Amino acid sequence: MKRILNVVMLVLLAGVICGQENKAELVEDFKPSSTNQPGQEYPMVNSEGRVRAQILAPDATYVQLDIGGVKYDLVKDDDGVWTGESAPQDVGFHYYQLNIDGASVPDPGSLLFFGACRWGSGVEIPAPDQDIFALKDVPHGHVHEILFPSKSTNTSRRAFVYTPPGYQQESSTRYPVLYLQHGYCENETSWPSQGRVNLIMDNLIAEGKAEPFIIVMTYGMTNDIKFGELRKFDIKPFQTVLIDELIPYIDTHFRTLASQEKRAMAGLSMGGMETKQITLNRPDVFSHYGLFSGGTYNPDELKEHDGLKLVFLSCGSKERPEGVKNAVVDLKNEGFNAVSYISEGTAHEFHTWRRSLYQLAQLLFK
Amino acid sequence: MKRILNVVMLVLLAGVICGQENKAELVEDFKPSSTNQPGQEYPMVNSEGRVRAQILAPDATYVQLDIGGVKYDLVKDDDGVWTGESAPQDVGFHYYQLNIDGASVPDPGSLLFFGACRWGSGVEIPAPDQDIFALKDVPHGHVHEILFPSKSTNTSRRAFVYTPPGYQQESSTRYPVLYLQHGYCENETSWPSQGRVNLIMDNLIAEGKAEPFIIVMTYGMTNDIKFGELRKFDIKPFQTVLIDELIPYIDTHFRTLASQEKRAMAGLSMGGMETKQITLNRPDVFSHYGLFSGGTYNPDELKEHDGLKLVFLSCGSKERPEGVKNAVVDLKNEGFNAVSYISEGTAHEFHTWRRSLYQLAQLLFK
Repeated sequence: MKRILNVVMLVLLAGVICGQENKAELVEDFKPSSTNQPGQEYPMVNSEGRVRAQILAPDATYVQLDIGGVKYDLVKDDDGVWTGESAPQDVGFHYYQLNIDGASVPDPGSLLFFGACRWGSGVEIPAPDQDIFALKDVPHGHVHEILFPSKSTNTSRRAFVYTPPGYQQESSTRYPVLYLQHGYCENETSWPSQGRVNLIMDNLIAEGKAEPFIIVMTYGMTNDIKFGELRKFDIKPFQTVLIDELIPYIDTHFRTLASQEKRAMAGLSMGGMETKQITLNRPDVFSHYGLFSGGTYNPDELKEHDGLKLVFLSCGSKERPEGVKNAVVDLKNEGFNAVSYISEGTAHEFHTWRRSLYQLAQLLFK
Repeated sequence: MKRILNVVMLVLLAGVICGQENKAELVEDFKPSSTNQPGQEYPMVNSEGRVRAQILAPDATYVQLDIGGVKYDLVKDDDGVWTGESAPQDVGFHYYQLNIDGASVPDPGSLLFFGACRWGSGVEIPAPDQDIFALKDVPHGHVHEILFPSKSTNTSRRAFVYTPPGYQQESSTRYPVLYLQHGYCENETSWPSQGRVNLIMDNLIAEGKAEPFIIVMTYGMTNDIKFGELRKFDIKPFQTVLIDELIPYIDTHFRTLASQEKRAMAGLSMGGMETKQITLNRPDVFSHYGLFSGGTYNPDELKEHDGLKLVFLSCGSKERPEGVKNAVVDLKNEGFNAVSYISEGTAHEFHTWRRSLYQLAQLLFK
């Protein structure tokens, strides 16, 4: 017994020593991130979800990898190349940047994504379910970049429109439409790019799991307010753009089923807040509502909503999932068709929302 | 007389002093570049075409603006903010980067463009003719991001397809197609993004200066060879993708006029080299050829080209315009419909090619 205890002590001691020797703990199976620039080896990711960054900066005093709110020091070699690793990250997509002697800059190794209020670096931690957005040999839909006229803002505004496989070859089939909003400090490129909307939909449709529908993504005017002032956000200007300008443009320029029954709205985070406000203000326009990490509805708010077919509420398990679960129980008790989805092991980040779209898409327009 | 000479001497002396005091020479009318990230003031550009960069880097030893093959030192203020200016640049679009203590990184102030073999910073120097790609209140076409199946490379490959205003609302009109290639170390995003293809076409069509046609832009496999080895470039793999895979996909998925008479090919720089090789290998496929800073044809090369309707050759006045001009004289002498265009005051850069597209588009399919 004493001998066993000694072994246990040794193992524990070894653990403490390894804890001090951070490098020794790393699992050395790093591979280039799928979100790297063409031909770039770094950043790399290992099976623990650590990110290894590397950059040539021969005259720098310090270089840091800034990810998930933490700055990790990189170490310089004799050639002036700095390398270092983060702690393990959740599976999925994360914005990050490099800090070179106090300058916050994009990593030249990674592709660039709009989030955190700017175009900057992103890294993908492989997820067990990354197959949902893999590029496969299936029929692919198209993502249209459109400029629609907006009298209320006196501009041509940009949107991206996903049309499902088959849309371009046919000339008569009409499709339902999902209006899908990004979050605070993202823009109309965020869902098509880091959200992988087209690949998620192509794969679902190829497997017969989702009805083909159109998805429209536009800018939610989010940069016009500061983060601390989200509660003061006035939905009216965006509601006007969406309801009075974008929807008529889409119904004119695409083969839509232009009715409440065949129109859905969903959004993530602030886009969920926008979805809730607009669906409450205009219950006549949409029949399917989705809030991804973006709040809940209570039964009272929806009691006058004729034609409401689905309420979908989701978030990551690392957010506050009880709110979503409880809200759906309440809605169901009052007879609403409500569905909750909790993304296991993820927080307020894009993998939560890709999974949410994957789930919602299978329920829409059925 | 002596007094006048003294005045002249004083003026010359002042000039020398000002020459040493570089700052005093600057015309202080800097404005944010139109290619900045949302809300970003820097980089700025003045009426001389100088670029002023700025970045917070409190602990850096040196910061440089790296543009046009020259590195300009920035100067640090008491808050750790570095600022500095380049020499005057040609009008139009230029790739650039920042150098922070030896690290070459994108400027977090600018939008990001694929060129120079990587996603990086770009800056726009206002041109007298920038109106040709201004965003105006006219009907806008759509830019489709598509994934087409490619058996020869065993992938789904990406292309961007411009469809002109009216294409989406109608269901029967068919359109001619221009296949338009990027240059070395650019990709399929370069023409739609820094090339401003959709805005150039929207404006031309609105003014009645160009026939509506479709434009298809895909990746020319350029990253597979090194710059010094361009002469060894084997056109066959790309020719297979273009002729045997992409064109059939486009003719199936878009309402094209699928004939040689209604099909054009053009490209810039290496894309011009590809255009020349493919049109020489397959004279049956295209009827209009355009080389932008990408070589010339001689009459002998084209003598068997039945159905050839137009040869368009262009370059910047700061390149070697004589080659283009002489080639067109030779072609005309042999009875070909050949047109030369020289972009005044520009070199081997995107403004030369935007202007070339603007000119070519007015001649195509007429």
